[in-house]
Amino acid sequence: MGTNAAMQDLPFDIASLHAAYEAGTTPADVIAECYRRISAAGDPGIFITLIDAATAQGDVARLGPFDRSTKPLWGVPFAIKDNIDAAGEQTTAGCPAFAYGAVADAFTVAQLRAAGAILIGKTNLDQFATGLVGVRSPYPIPKNAIDPEIVPGGSSSGSAVAVARGLVSFALGTDTAGSGRVPAALNNIVGLKPTVGSLSAGGLVPACRTVDTISVFALTVEDAYRAFQSAAGHDPADAFSKAVATPDLGALPPTFRVGVPDPASIEFFGDTAQEDAFKAALLAVEAAGGAIVPLDFTPFYQVAEMLYGGVWVAERHAVVGPLMDRDPEAVHPVIRQIVGAAAKFSATDTFNSFYRIEALRRTCEAAMAGLDLLCVPTIPTFFTVADLEADPIGPNSKLGTYTNFVNLLGLCGITVPTGTRGDGRPASTTLLARAEQDGLTAALASKLHQGAGVTLGATDWPLPVVAEPTPKADAGEIVVAAVGAHMSGLPLNGELTKLGGRFLSAAKTADGYRLYRLAGGPPFRPGLVRAADGGAIALELWALPLNSFGAFMAGIPAPLGIGTVTLEDGSTVNGFICEAAGLEGAADITEFGGWRAYLAAETARQGSNP
Amino acid sequence: MGTNAAMQDLPFDIASLHAAYEAGTTPADVIAECYRRISAAGDPGIFITLIDAATAQGDVARLGPFDRSTKPLWGVPFAIKDNIDAAGEQTTAGCPAFAYGAVADAFTVAQLRAAGAILIGKTNLDQFATGLVGVRSPYPIPKNAIDPEIVPGGSSSGSAVAVARGLVSFALGTDTAGSGRVPAALNNIVGLKPTVGSLSAGGLVPACRTVDTISVFALTVEDAYRAFQSAAGHDPADAFSKAVATPDLGALPPTFRVGVPDPASIEFFGDTAQEDAFKAALLAVEAAGGAIVPLDFTPFYQVAEMLYGGVWVAERHAVVGPLMDRDPEAVHPVIRQIVGAAAKFSATDTFNSFYRIEALRRTCEAAMAGLDLLCVPTIPTFFTVADLEADPIGPNSKLGTYTNFVNLLGLCGITVPTGTRGDGRPASTTLLARAEQDGLTAALASKLHQGAGVTLGATDWPLPVVAEPTPKADAGEIVVAAVGAHMSGLPLNGELTKLGGRFLSAAKTADGYRLYRLAGGPPFRPGLVRAADGGAIALELWALPLNSFGAFMAGIPAPLGIGTVTLEDGSTVNGFICEAAGLEGAADITEFGGWRAYLAAETARQGSNP
Repeated sequence: MGTNAAMQDLPFDIASLHAAYEAGTTPADVIAECYRRISAAGDPGIFITLIDAATAQGDVARLGPFDRSTKPLWGVPFAIKDNIDAAGEQTTAGCPAFAYGAVADAFTVAQLRAAGAILIGKTNLDQFATGLVGVRSPYPIPKNAIDPEIVPGGSSSGSAVAVARGLVSFALGTDTAGSGRVPAALNNIVGLKPTVGSLSAGGLVPACRTVDTISVFALTVEDAYRAFQSAAGHDPADAFSKAVATPDLGALPPTFRVGVPDPASIEFFGDTAQEDAFKAALLAVEAAGGAIVPLDFTPFYQVAEMLYGGVWVAERHAVVGPLMDRDPEAVHPVIRQIVGAAAKFSATDTFNSFYRIEALRRTCEAAMAGLDLLCVPTIPTFFTVADLEADPIGPNSKLGTYTNFVNLLGLCGITVPTGTRGDGRPASTTLLARAEQDGLTAALASKLHQGAGVTLGATDWPLPVVAEPTPKADAGEIVVAAVGAHMSGLPLNGELTKLGGRFLSAAKTADGYRLYRLAGGPPFRPGLVRAADGGAIALELWALPLNSFGAFMAGIPAPLGIGTVTLEDGSTVNGFICEAAGLEGAADITEFGGWRAYLAAETARQGSNP
Repeated sequence: MGTNAAMQDLPFDIASLHAAYEAGTTPADVIAECYRRISAAGDPGIFITLIDAATAQGDVARLGPFDRSTKPLWGVPFAIKDNIDAAGEQTTAGCPAFAYGAVADAFTVAQLRAAGAILIGKTNLDQFATGLVGVRSPYPIPKNAIDPEIVPGGSSSGSAVAVARGLVSFALGTDTAGSGRVPAALNNIVGLKPTVGSLSAGGLVPACRTVDTISVFALTVEDAYRAFQSAAGHDPADAFSKAVATPDLGALPPTFRVGVPDPASIEFFGDTAQEDAFKAALLAVEAAGGAIVPLDFTPFYQVAEMLYGGVWVAERHAVVGPLMDRDPEAVHPVIRQIVGAAAKFSATDTFNSFYRIEALRRTCEAAMAGLDLLCVPTIPTFFTVADLEADPIGPNSKLGTYTNFVNLLGLCGITVPTGTRGDGRPASTTLLARAEQDGLTAALASKLHQGAGVTLGATDWPLPVVAEPTPKADAGEIVVAAVGAHMSGLPLNGELTKLGGRFLSAAKTADGYRLYRLAGGPPFRPGLVRAADGGAIALELWALPLNSFGAFMAGIPAPLGIGTVTLEDGSTVNGFICEAAGLEGAADITEFGGWRAYLAAETARQGSNP
């Protein structure tokens, strides 16, 4: 890795980068390579501001030793869309007349830097994040990384292209109507549009403040999710910020239900290659365990129409209006036209729109009842830069077909490459789920990406093979360690499964437990008790929905209870414990190492179950 | 009870009515008495529509046998504000030109009828529920039930007066800015303004649809709460309806924290009698176990100002605007002036107001951190009908000082009489709490009412003595025995209350438990362990919603767990247990009989909490 040639070939996905760091590559060399690549890329449209290389190297010098547990983004170069603040840099929102010097990092940027990421630059965008095309900027237009004829996608154009060309490992975008998803689809990368509120808007120039979220572009699902986890957190200074659980990326459930637009409501504007690509993606979803459920998407489209066609454009006006009043020419003519439409809406119109959207939300929720996910084409078709020159509005609207409704409905989503079309253009799909299900969408996205047969972005770097994730509970679940009759195949296992429990894995306690067969029964029950001279006891980890735990608890008799059990890896989970007073008449069966082994020994001895 | 004289004296609170039914009085006679009283009252301003007596008697005939468990409002006469639909009757919203014939009952009315209540009439109101005074109606103005010189209060004027005069047992009002509380204060009755969304707005002419709730006036807290329970329920046809838990009215926790306006921010407009009445009410709150916490109310007032002074008036315009455009003279001149102000607000103003209110919400939430309730004077002072003739706006605004902010902040509340001022006017206070804590506010209100030394409304009927409610968990709850820092007033109690936990009762374990102070902390934690030679340990029983038990469990560290605890009456509940291995370094504090007594002893010994 020491030679310049090797450095030029180093993939910038985080797995590859961290492997290189472990092998002795220095972050100073990686950051220098970043700047070399940016220069070599020869596209002045990607970045509006490059961080001074000496400043970035100063950040590198302060990183401390490589430690991926405390700094999961250690030495990882990233960029941010230029509507997000970085201390000491200009924030333009794509409009030089609007620019101001940021005195502090945006909340998310500070979080990412604290996790070890190194900021390299601030990227071009559709002005004021208003657009899905990437050509509505007074700066040079970034070229699509895959095919310069098609639009780069927007509004987060520069961030998507910077990632797709391997200039940085990940980049922040923002997403109101699809700006964190459409450019991902157009550049063969991953776009994670998290639950609204999970990434603070502190230090962000908003587009539609009640609808916006910062988003993450990366080369892999794992990288996007890791950056999301690092950037997330409740920010008391942002009234719309929420504390959102960001559990580690886990395994997919064995089965799940996926809503898709039905044949009558799906729309590709005649692009049969796109239609074929989506059909192929659905086969991959089915192969991953998804049951496909066709839905009439009409109410979702009705929500979508309200975002640009309705009162929410007034949120953009709240940001851009003062400048437009003062100096109309300072604003891009297309943006001026869009934002100017706010003037026609009154407060009364606004409330009437809220009533309508609330009713539509209920309709869409009803349509999604019983579903775990939605799966949509990210974009219905492709448009060229020339198309947009001919009609700056129409193609933009069409690109938002499957993205505009998402934030207004409070859904989270992720865009992931699913293959390559016959014409070489990237195929992608977007997975959507209810708020705070970011881990679920990412888990399926990772599976789809692994099977997509694509390289990363516009590079020839292979997709790193992802180890099957350790099965973990979701945010809405609690792990319960079962040590006795609740284990799979034993008499009380049904109490777990009927409450929605799912098997995670077999495991063992740490050393220092004793297992007893309690007096009484059937059903015969074991008691697990901590004791310094004890051993490791076999158990099963089950994930139970948090909201059914109370019902589970109600069925557990004395002397058993649920407390904390320490596993052999030192982690702790909730699990069965036993009151010491309940051990009267109990037999110490620690020597068997677990309930199942004890049962087997008893069966062998007696010729039947005890 | 068979004679007419006895019937004329029959109190219409539900306890008295149901006792009479048990003793043989017929609902037909009670409903006839209703109409006799309405006629005898001689106030044509109370009702806009009286239900035809034959229709009401027809409803009586269909009641079936007296059964208070399936029909908790069996044979109970009620009225509804005339912005709520009753099948076959006109709904005027206080504006004849707006009137329409309702084809179906409002959702809440149907619920109440299903619970056995008998609809008697539809009551007068400030037109379009816009006002707190009750004099903004084209119909005759209802007279205040206590003192005809002062305003009846609005907007739910007729409903409040009908209850206060004992014409019906309870009545529905609505409450946007205080219309369900101010008239209660002015007429010596109870006004329950529930959690927004708990009572469907289906069949209601809205005032501000995102802020409104239907409310309940009654002679006693128990009656208001019972009607609320019967009327509540999720209505899929109302996009703003929510499924809200309405557990039976329970006991107050032994201690709780109550925020009140501090001396710098409290306002009585010079009314020292009102100030004295509020001080007396706070003494009663303290006597009931409340710790008083003075708060700067400035942010609450800032929220209040936004309701009438800001964009929310456009919600009223969304309802009234079409009529005002068509026939301005059809609308009451004061209402026309208020609603007409909507024209000056744009969609951009509206969103800017949302940003501001969201920030204020966070400020108010922070101010309320650690508090269980707020307690405010319902009204800062009284105004006469003559005051309103002189200035139709100013006194109305002042009446809303302590009510306007409540719904915008998502709080629930209840107004309750607390005594009689020296000048004979009713004293009252309003208790507020976070959404879905309607049972908590009602429990304290009941306690205050019992100690208020007042008769019911404008009658000479005594307040029925309420049996201390038997604390019990509902079907959707699990009982948890707290033995340490989770008990009321102690550092971890918030983990129970934030999950919807509600206090049931203080209790003790059976004999045979030992209590330890565990090593470590703060927070300091006890460990409860069964031991044949132990004693009885004091604890508190809390009811926790089953579906939040998992979240509660997730916060309990080793060596503690939840198991089964046997109480002194031999029954068992879920409660905190402790692993024997966790007792290392622990001190046996069984002799104190409980954690609270131990803390008190330590405080006495050390001069501070341990």
